Amino acid sequence: MAWYRGKLAMFLLIFQAIFLVLFGVLVEYDPAADARTEHIEEEHGYQNPVDFYYAMFQDVHVMVFVGFGFLMTFLRKYSFSSVGFNFLAAFMIEWATLMRGFMELGHHHGKITVNIESMILADFTAATVLISFGALLGKISPLQLIIMAFIEVILAVVNEYIALEIFGAVDVGGSMVIHAFGAYFGLTVARVLATEKSRISSKEGSNYTSDLFSMIGTIFLWLFWPSFNSALAAEDARHRAVLNTYYSLAACCIVTFAFSSLFNKEGKMQMEHIQNATLAGGVAVGTTADLMIFPWGAVLLGSLAGFITTFGFHYVTPWMSKKLKIHDTCGVNNLHGMPGIVAALGGAVVASLADKDLYGRNLYVMFPALKPGGEGEMEDMVTGSPEKMMSGRSASGQAGYQLAALAVTLVIAIVGGLVTGFVLKLPFWNEPKEDDELFDDHQNWELPEEEERMINGNSPSKKPLTKHGEAEDKV
Amino acid sequence: MAWYRGKLAMFLLIFQAIFLVLFGVLVEYDPAADARTEHIEEEHGYQNPVDFYYAMFQDVHVMVFVGFGFLMTFLRKYSFSSVGFNFLAAFMIEWATLMRGFMELGHHHGKITVNIESMILADFTAATVLISFGALLGKISPLQLIIMAFIEVILAVVNEYIALEIFGAVDVGGSMVIHAFGAYFGLTVARVLATEKSRISSKEGSNYTSDLFSMIGTIFLWLFWPSFNSALAAEDARHRAVLNTYYSLAACCIVTFAFSSLFNKEGKMQMEHIQNATLAGGVAVGTTADLMIFPWGAVLLGSLAGFITTFGFHYVTPWMSKKLKIHDTCGVNNLHGMPGIVAALGGAVVASLADKDLYGRNLYVMFPALKPGGEGEMEDMVTGSPEKMMSGRSASGQAGYQLAALAVTLVIAIVGGLVTGFVLKLPFWNEPKEDDELFDDHQNWELPEEEERMINGNSPSKKPLTKHGEAEDKV
Amino acid sequence: MAWYRGKLAMFLLIFQAIFLVLFGVLVEYDPAADARTEHIEEEHGYQNPVDFYYAMFQDVHVMVFVGFGFLMTFLRKYSFSSVGFNFLAAFMIEWATLMRGFMELGHHHGKITVNIESMILADFTAATVLISFGALLGKISPLQLIIMAFIEVILAVVNEYIALEIFGAVDVGGSMVIHAFGAYFGLTVARVLATEKSRISSKEGSNYTSDLFSMIGTIFLWLFWPSFNSALAAEDARHRAVLNTYYSLAACCIVTFAFSSLFNKEGKMQMEHIQNATLAGGVAVGTTADLMIFPWGAVLLGSLAGFITTFGFHYVTPWMSKKLKIHDTCGVNNLHGMPGIVAALGGAVVASLADKDLYGRNLYVMFPALKPGGEGEMEDMVTGSPEKMMSGRSASGQAGYQLAALAVTLVIAIVGGLVTGFVLKLPFWNEPKEDDELFDDHQNWELPEEEERMINGNSPSKKPLTKHGEAEDKV
Repeated sequence: MAWYRGKLAMFLLIFQAIFLVLFGVLVEYDPAADARTEHIEEEHGYQNPVDFYYAMFQDVHVMVFVGFGFLMTFLRKYSFSSVGFNFLAAFMIEWATLMRGFMELGHHHGKITVNIESMILADFTAATVLISFGALLGKISPLQLIIMAFIEVILAVVNEYIALEIFGAVDVGGSMVIHAFGAYFGLTVARVLATEKSRISSKEGSNYTSDLFSMIGTIFLWLFWPSFNSALAAEDARHRAVLNTYYSLAACCIVTFAFSSLFNKEGKMQMEHIQNATLAGGVAVGTTADLMIFPWGAVLLGSLAGFITTFGFHYVTPWMSKKLKIHDTCGVNNLHGMPGIVAALGGAVVASLADKDLYGRNLYVMFPALKPGGEGEMEDMVTGSPEKMMSGRSASGQAGYQLAALAVTLVIAIVGGLVTGFVLKLPFWNEPKEDDELFDDHQNWELPEEEERMINGNSPSKKPLTKHGEAEDKV
Repeated sequence: MAWYRGKLAMFLLIFQAIFLVLFGVLVEYDPAADARTEHIEEEHGYQNPVDFYYAMFQDVHVMVFVGFGFLMTFLRKYSFSSVGFNFLAAFMIEWATLMRGFMELGHHHGKITVNIESMILADFTAATVLISFGALLGKISPLQLIIMAFIEVILAVVNEYIALEIFGAVDVGGSMVIHAFGAYFGLTVARVLATEKSRISSKEGSNYTSDLFSMIGTIFLWLFWPSFNSALAAEDARHRAVLNTYYSLAACCIVTFAFSSLFNKEGKMQMEHIQNATLAGGVAVGTTADLMIFPWGAVLLGSLAGFITTFGFHYVTPWMSKKLKIHDTCGVNNLHGMPGIVAALGGAVVASLADKDLYGRNLYVMFPALKPGGEGEMEDMVTGSPEKMMSGRSASGQAGYQLAALAVTLVIAIVGGLVTGFVLKLPFWNEPKEDDELFDDHQNWELPEEEERMINGNSPSKKPLTKHGEAEDKV
Repeated sequence: MAWYRGKLAMFLLIFQAIFLVLFGVLVEYDPAADARTEHIEEEHGYQNPVDFYYAMFQDVHVMVFVGFGFLMTFLRKYSFSSVGFNFLAAFMIEWATLMRGFMELGHHHGKITVNIESMILADFTAATVLISFGALLGKISPLQLIIMAFIEVILAVVNEYIALEIFGAVDVGGSMVIHAFGAYFGLTVARVLATEKSRISSKEGSNYTSDLFSMIGTIFLWLFWPSFNSALAAEDARHRAVLNTYYSLAACCIVTFAFSSLFNKEGKMQMEHIQNATLAGGVAVGTTADLMIFPWGAVLLGSLAGFITTFGFHYVTPWMSKKLKIHDTCGVNNLHGMPGIVAALGGAVVASLADKDLYGRNLYVMFPALKPGGEGEMEDMVTGSPEKMMSGRSASGQAGYQLAALAVTLVIAIVGGLVTGFVLKLPFWNEPKEDDELFDDHQNWELPEEEERMINGNSPSKKPLTKHGEAEDKV
């Protein structure tokens, strides 16, 4: 036990010490956050980026910590761990900040600059890991979560670089690089770790109160998803991303209620569906949210997602658990995996239709890879003679790159998940093995007295255990 | 049961299909959200409307889904339905978008344009229906809610058009067209549906946990109400609306605590009052929030509202239930009805005092109907000779139109509620009839195992019911 | 009982009446919120302050009412009081508005002007009182809270004036004037009131559900703390304050998990630590958040705070309770007191290093007291000849004033707390005295039927107690 106790703390503190050193050596304020910046004749209406991005950053921040955290509290004996270990996203934030910076050291004279945009991106990467965690909830130790996070952040950042920078795919809401990646990474880890554990545990279930706590997560996710999909967009693209996500989510919500009722023998709705499938519209529209899909396109994607995800919870999750030995605690395949693929395919279709009729002068803003040449004034590109320019990528070329981005995402997620799974299998990480350790806070949390009593039989401890109780003996 | 099951799903899916078609045929992006818009020489400091409105939109959005949703969870056996059916506001959002668009087809070449402002308005209309739902909570089926929402959205949009466009009344926070309308519509429906149901059910009550969940709703509503009342205002009017609502709510909160304690024999506070009456200040100041009522006016309105609403919960609700057979589950008469009327009367008084001394050049911004002529440059109106202009409405004329707006709101709400009530009485909508169906999630939700066991007696089901349990039998 | 009942209500209503009169006589809209303001040729890009500050104001507002309110619900029998009495922060908001205005009557022609900034400041002062309340939670009556708030608001505003205006200390996030002040004021009151009450009560503890409600408070506080520390900053300073607080909190969270596990014999984490110590990074960086501490400085401060606060909960709180007879219900010494002192010391160090190399032209923006002369154009100060100017304060002088501000804060907090404690000891304020009155909602709240039954033994009341039940007897 002493060793158990030391291990998690040791890893956290060593990582934190390394992060501190790396922050000290490498991390600098962006000029927009640095007091030394000479603001050369500030123009009228100059707005510091923090003002432009901050409100949406906070919405994303709420999604990551309140949304994901409370969504997972549905497990009635594992709620402390759900919301508590989710809080370890703080680890992912620091590590993602550094890891993303490593990719761009060259652009910043060997330094990592941080600003409000890098904060949004760090939160996005934390979300990726938390999605994977959803597949493993109740079945891994906090130490395993930290190790997984350390590896997954690296792979997620590299994958994103390949998909978005090298392939030039668009994915404003990260449906490929966040949702699909996180889901299939986590599911692969779940498969590798599966042994006895994929059996059914009597503790894996909700109660009335835990389902209500979970709805706190659901609703904040649902409300702020338009911010997730538009945080990094600007001007008309941001406006469009907000509208599309809003309507996609509304449609998804209605369709989820319909199929949740339809799939039940008695026409009753299931909380699990309402908690999760209502959100799938945000994922399904994530790749195309800022594109010209028109409001009906958003409604269509959202409706489709509502059906697929509800169907997934009802049919696919049990099937995967039984046939593939992939036990998916939160159903991330349904909420993030399949809708992420829908989003990616939608992105390819929409990219293939991109032209000046649909996007006007914004064509190259939305699809930079289509831009001919890559030099010259914007004026030249619109009016200039084609002979002077190298031609850019075609719309169908862009569609191909969108599909390639999906493919590379799936490959890196699955291969990375395999490797990570085998690392996590090492008998060193305090993995919960016994039946009564699964889906149970007891192993990791000092529980309130009455919970302890229920666990240890009915012998109430003699001394009243107060907040100050335990420690008083020692001082 | 199979038919029961099919009905809700069928209606939801048919509506959704129709919405999809209408979105496809009619709905377009506002130019500010359309990539094809030529931004003619964007001036310095041009701000896309999404940036101006988005943060307040999100506050309103939180109020509608978290605020109303959790506020209603106080019913200890009906919390799934409270927060779950509240989520069907997604239906109202889509339908309100279309319905509002129908009213303005003429202005937009036969198209409906959507933007961040139309999103706020759609959420406002959803709030209207949810207020009505508050009167009916626990007593109607989700299918009845959908049918009611379909009708009420139409009437609410028409009423708003008459009150604000035709009569030119001001009502920035919608105290007349949202709160009073929603309350008296819902109460009328409650009266028509009342039969046996207005009797007291042992299930209609809270427990310690459900009251705490309800406080989540209360506090988010209280916090974001300044956004509700100022979301559609701009510049100094927005600033004023924020201040007035803030101080009105603060005063209302204090007075509510005082009277809650005073009305109780032992001087104890009641959660029901704290959950609801603290919010009445937001309603009572809603019509005049952006007008020159001065901070003391806001404090006065808030104090008054705190008293009226607490009084209402303590005396009026039981009286209405007993004498008028109007059973008001959430007390919407107290929180939305009476304070809405207070707001409307306050609006008439404040309008009657409007002049250039109080509003300066903003007089015609705040009261457009007072503007003489309606043509010409703003310059002309301020300095120009009166001979050249038709004179505008007088201040007391405006006060009259404010009262007319209240009257038409009440008439449409009550007549509409009567008609809707009779439609909902048709024996087709799965209305909960039996005593044990009222205020109980059991009819509509697949409950967690332990709840099921409590309902079905103490025979724990043999197989552990896991998240994947039920469906596994089928696959 | 009748007298008990009357007293709280009477005080609240008398205060509210006085506030109303004072608002009527003294309070005016800021010109930016007044319709009469002549906007002289509004420049391009003019932004009403409400747009600049509002989103961050709302974050702070959520922290004060949801954050503090739910954080304190961990007491399993006192959750109604925790979130309910916290709601009385509305009282503090009104009184702080007036009290702050009194300090500046001279600047505004004998009037108090209110605007979005004064709203943020009023919320800050409310937070100060709520921190003190945290030390006293469960041990004082709501009437005592109101009396304490009345006195503490006066002292907090005066202290802030001395520390920030007279001494010219910087403290953007209020770690000295809000956190340390509130903590040591409250702890002193707790010491004065301590008699029998500092004994251990069996009711002073959490249960599984109350701990989860508490996490709602924790996480919203954690998420929005960057807004708390940057709400009053602008441009690059705001950007910097956001970044520093974000990284300080992330580091603090990780270190808290590590030490929470390390301090436990079995390596288990404790909810009390996670609920509180994770937040200490926000306090510890509060004084220096907008200064050039660099991201590593923020990470260092946050890590330190995580350790100190977890250590405090484990060792210092029990020791203080036993040896000093200071019983600190929520552990405010750990979360607000000690980290507030860390922040203050950090502020002195950082101030002592301030120079043009670090701050460029922003040196005098960040440290106005360093500015030479105090007259003349900014140009003159940067380039002008020193002979023409009185020289400003030196960096080490500023450091001295930072320490002086801490000292005066502690002195006023402790002396004020002593006086207030003796006032609250008067046998007039319905102080809970009996053992079963402590940490128990029963004295102040009409509880739901099932709670009542548990308290009164197992005789369920005959008549079903519905929402409308009690009052119906009377009407």
